[in-house]
Amino acid sequence: MKVDTALAARAREFFEAQQTRICNELAALDGRAAFTMEAWERAGGGGGLTGVLANGDVFEKAGVNTSAVWGEFDDAAMKRLGQSGARGFFATGISMVLHPRSPMVPTMHANFRLLQRGDDQWFGGGSDLTPAYPFRDDVVAFHRHWKAVCDHHDAAYYPRFKRWCDEYFSIPHRSEMRGVGGIFFDDLRGDPEKTYAFVTDCCRNVLVPYVAIVARHRDEPYGDREREFQLFRRGRYVEFNLIYDRGTAFGLATQGRTESILMSLPPLASWRYGYTPQAGSREAEAMRFFQPRDWV
Amino acid sequence: MKVDTALAARAREFFEAQQTRICNELAALDGRAAFTMEAWERAGGGGGLTGVLANGDVFEKAGVNTSAVWGEFDDAAMKRLGQSGARGFFATGISMVLHPRSPMVPTMHANFRLLQRGDDQWFGGGSDLTPAYPFRDDVVAFHRHWKAVCDHHDAAYYPRFKRWCDEYFSIPHRSEMRGVGGIFFDDLRGDPEKTYAFVTDCCRNVLVPYVAIVARHRDEPYGDREREFQLFRRGRYVEFNLIYDRGTAFGLATQGRTESILMSLPPLASWRYGYTPQAGSREAEAMRFFQPRDWV
Repeated sequence: MKVDTALAARAREFFEAQQTRICNELAALDGRAAFTMEAWERAGGGGGLTGVLANGDVFEKAGVNTSAVWGEFDDAAMKRLGQSGARGFFATGISMVLHPRSPMVPTMHANFRLLQRGDDQWFGGGSDLTPAYPFRDDVVAFHRHWKAVCDHHDAAYYPRFKRWCDEYFSIPHRSEMRGVGGIFFDDLRGDPEKTYAFVTDCCRNVLVPYVAIVARHRDEPYGDREREFQLFRRGRYVEFNLIYDRGTAFGLATQGRTESILMSLPPLASWRYGYTPQAGSREAEAMRFFQPRDWV
Repeated sequence: MKVDTALAARAREFFEAQQTRICNELAALDGRAAFTMEAWERAGGGGGLTGVLANGDVFEKAGVNTSAVWGEFDDAAMKRLGQSGARGFFATGISMVLHPRSPMVPTMHANFRLLQRGDDQWFGGGSDLTPAYPFRDDVVAFHRHWKAVCDHHDAAYYPRFKRWCDEYFSIPHRSEMRGVGGIFFDDLRGDPEKTYAFVTDCCRNVLVPYVAIVARHRDEPYGDREREFQLFRRGRYVEFNLIYDRGTAFGLATQGRTESILMSLPPLASWRYGYTPQAGSREAEAMRFFQPRDWV
């Protein structure tokens, strides 16, 4: 197989168009703040467009990134990736992290990407939910949504990608998951038309379950106690992203654009020594959600 | 050389006595809050004592840890450490991280430790300062203090350990240091009586320059702008500790006690996309301090 430049161009254009659509929808959902778009170039080849909405009504911070980068892996990257394989690469994708203001509305993350290395190519991506206070119906609806999107393409996808998500977004030193999961996939090879159709379908439907969740909880009242618990939960988010997330580590190790990579970090997070919620409290109940479970 | 159990016992007792002294001095300095001490045991052997002071007058969060742990490195630890060398180890040390409430008072970190592995043994440690708003005189005094302590033992120590500190506490993805440095050393072998005398001298004098800095700035006025800059600076502290700090990575990878390891994280930290201080502002001036410089 030769490098599939036609697929690369198509994927890139698709992700860029989706970024515009997604930013528009999120800004409309927020109703107060707008996205600021910043284009950047990568010294080694390519660049991206970072969209950030800050201090909105719904969102304390929301980021939607696209990028298309190419070049040659340097020695450090080769060492990280395993020495075998070509040095030449192309990568294009979209990523988004939405940190709402209200502790009653969950943080949402999604990313979809095409990678090409030498004459190999594959898709990766997924979407997952990280609530402070999880609501059972929301979690079930989120998982059912992704099961439906997956099933439309391959009945084997959802069970595999759901489990993969549970494994990937785990915080071993806390014996917790980052959130309540969703789907995660990587190394998706095979017929590129089939995988492209799946990934683009995921991306087109990425906001559907989240918009419904926001609508249900955005006006729910909360106080200092809930805000504190949200900041504590965001501390866990930071721990996962900086210690375990492969995309973050890869981006920083390959001299990616720091501000775009770390856009995923919450606007404010806290750490309190030895904090564990009181037995029977709403917070203790919340923590029970952050273990792998069958939600559909 | 056989395992030096006499030195191990002496170092352990010394660090534990220093912990009591240091906690007492810090609590007196704070004047409002007290340390809560929590003993813990390690499944594989040994344990520690974690002291935390929260919501004080000077300190928003201060932690002083001691531990003495022993056992056999498992496969994961061996892989991390390099496959050669004995599996049996003993480690004892003290570590402290002081996060003041006021943005005018710097964060201080120090740790000193003895490691034994098979029949090899060495000391490591150091102390460094991370201000939000650095004052030139404080930074010079801090470095002069450590130069004096070093020079008393070996004239080669300070230049070497100062440079090592600059290198160790660097945040490559930001092209910044974590703070204004100090001293850092590891693999300190040679005559154990000489190195023990040096390390214990460091530990006995660890609070001296810091107490003077606190006294100078604890009552300085500040507002929301300074607090925001402090939270931004603390975000960098989190980035360093979770991405680069070897002690943190080693602790988490070897199933250490998470709450004691992550005691180093600030009580509250923030991230704002694309923030850079305005040229000519006090914050822009502060950022100029976070590059290696000759301070003595």
